[in-house]
Amino acid sequence: MSSQRLYTPGPLTTSPTVRAAMMRDVGSRDVEFTSIIQTIRATLVDMAAPGHPDLYAAVLLPGSGTYAIEATLGSCLPQTGVLLVVINGAYGERMRQIAERLHLTHVVLRVPEHLTVEPADLRAALDAHPNVTHVAFVHCETTTGLLNPLAALAQVTSDRRLVLIVDAMSSFGALPINLPKLDVHYLVASSNKCLEGVPGLSFVIAQRQPLLACKGLARSVSLDLVAQLQALDTDGQFRFTPPTHVVLALAQALAELHEEGGVAARGARYACNQRRLVDDMRAAGFETYLPAELQGPIITTFRNPAAAGFDFEQFYQRLHARGFVIYPGKLTVASTFRIGSIGQLFEADMSALVENINAVLREMDIELQPA
Amino acid sequence: MSSQRLYTPGPLTTSPTVRAAMMRDVGSRDVEFTSIIQTIRATLVDMAAPGHPDLYAAVLLPGSGTYAIEATLGSCLPQTGVLLVVINGAYGERMRQIAERLHLTHVVLRVPEHLTVEPADLRAALDAHPNVTHVAFVHCETTTGLLNPLAALAQVTSDRRLVLIVDAMSSFGALPINLPKLDVHYLVASSNKCLEGVPGLSFVIAQRQPLLACKGLARSVSLDLVAQLQALDTDGQFRFTPPTHVVLALAQALAELHEEGGVAARGARYACNQRRLVDDMRAAGFETYLPAELQGPIITTFRNPAAAGFDFEQFYQRLHARGFVIYPGKLTVASTFRIGSIGQLFEADMSALVENINAVLREMDIELQPA
Repeated sequence: MSSQRLYTPGPLTTSPTVRAAMMRDVGSRDVEFTSIIQTIRATLVDMAAPGHPDLYAAVLLPGSGTYAIEATLGSCLPQTGVLLVVINGAYGERMRQIAERLHLTHVVLRVPEHLTVEPADLRAALDAHPNVTHVAFVHCETTTGLLNPLAALAQVTSDRRLVLIVDAMSSFGALPINLPKLDVHYLVASSNKCLEGVPGLSFVIAQRQPLLACKGLARSVSLDLVAQLQALDTDGQFRFTPPTHVVLALAQALAELHEEGGVAARGARYACNQRRLVDDMRAAGFETYLPAELQGPIITTFRNPAAAGFDFEQFYQRLHARGFVIYPGKLTVASTFRIGSIGQLFEADMSALVENINAVLREMDIELQPA
Repeated sequence: MSSQRLYTPGPLTTSPTVRAAMMRDVGSRDVEFTSIIQTIRATLVDMAAPGHPDLYAAVLLPGSGTYAIEATLGSCLPQTGVLLVVINGAYGERMRQIAERLHLTHVVLRVPEHLTVEPADLRAALDAHPNVTHVAFVHCETTTGLLNPLAALAQVTSDRRLVLIVDAMSSFGALPINLPKLDVHYLVASSNKCLEGVPGLSFVIAQRQPLLACKGLARSVSLDLVAQLQALDTDGQFRFTPPTHVVLALAQALAELHEEGGVAARGARYACNQRRLVDDMRAAGFETYLPAELQGPIITTFRNPAAAGFDFEQFYQRLHARGFVIYPGKLTVASTFRIGSIGQLFEADMSALVENINAVLREMDIELQPA
């Protein structure tokens, strides 16, 4: 298999230097390795809660991002807690599934997948369920690519003094999120999205003391967020074998994020990528699924063309053969596909992709009419 | 941080070619990647249940080995099940902790850490608890390095038609384990021990149909072994983001295991490493904690010398400065340290380690008397 350019929501295209950081073996209990872990944790806290290095803590957890979501819900909801899960896509739905599986008392606010969750929706749901103690929603729903209005929603939960859990899996690193300013209690993300590390490591950033106060609540040993925090705070060691190479890659990825100019610069690059993508795709005759004002800069959903002869599987394989990997759709209500604009991709990569899309359409004898 | 030779129970020293397999990015839903996953699964089944490619299945799970232990216990114990956890070290104790956290009905058989679990112990425990339905124990307890008698213990559970779960984390790949012959139902291991992959991926090998029959039992979404099996069987895709680079490394590691001559050849190399280690360490004046007949070839526990001036921390750091990483002890009853003989280490590496240990002892002005 040759190397591919990944236009996906992650795992994504990483830099050769991030991958090269994995070229050595380190001992998991070695002090040089644990000091790398502590640097990563401090960097993540500085990104999410600048100026509060002691008040906030980052907890690293091996595994997929979903593990960190489950660890947060399973470790932080007291038996008396009531969780409101806000759903407007597959990742909100997954949180509901976790709440159900863990027997957490929960209620649901559903919003159609093509709409953002608005503060009025949230206020109405909370009015209807005044016993809610915790609220969880997804910042950027990669199901569609839409961006829920984090600040406005956080204002609602802050006003009511509720605990807010944000799945920022595909936004953290590209969009500024200030936990103390927004009054967000738990931010959950992973190494292989906008931080541009490799997959295999997820993390949660939260206020240390409230998290420690959740001690004893965890429904799992492996996904016990408080026990993991205590271990990391003690000596920088994971409780169980860490993915050492993935951790080394994340350390390098964070250094490269800093070199790029931090979250602002990275977010600007992704936004530029996404504009180039949409402009070129529209010129090629494709339609976006979401209106521009709901669209985030991470991943964009396009409608499959109605043109006779368009077969997504064939379209995908032909692009793949050219070294371009796009992403299938995840919507049940519309026939779509997705293209990510994150990772080590630049404006020229977006143009190159659409040029190849045009070439593939010609190969497939499909002519689209630009709107 | 320079590259180190790791004399640990994993993460361990990998080959440069295994690490080089991580130098490219692949799409997690890409057919070339999913075909690599299916090859890995087939290879693991062929190792553990040769000749039974359909009857048995391997389920890969992101994360530490402990995750796969928890996934197995949490996914396969029916509400009416009663688990006997056999404990003679830290990893048996961890299974008990998981059983407790998941509210699984369980009883415990404790054996001192310096002794193997004998069939008579197991029979007595089962006689005392005739309602037990599942038995779980650790094959090689890296707490000490001892090897529990798998075949003899499996005979006991087979005679009584009990479900047997074996934590083979640090033995699979080095010691032959034939699931159908031994009547073992669940074998749990990970990528970064004797398979010599990198850490971040664990797996379970089990009979497919009995595992599928456990559908609906899982206490977790992330660690739902049956759901993960169904997803992998459908199209080779993980349910949640796989650690793609770690998976690529495991594929390469399995190819190299085959090239080395399979489990027999690898086990022979490790046994040779371990004999060289013990011979040289004894010549240097160190004592092993276990008698030879209980000792496995994976990791060896040595007593800290009684000599005045011996400080383990200083000893460790001086060895580390020379590029040799050993492992602290985990026993509460005796002052010890551990040295692993697995990974990309050969007889000459073991000699080199002990030569450096001797040099460090001289630096520390410590003279040991060979027995």
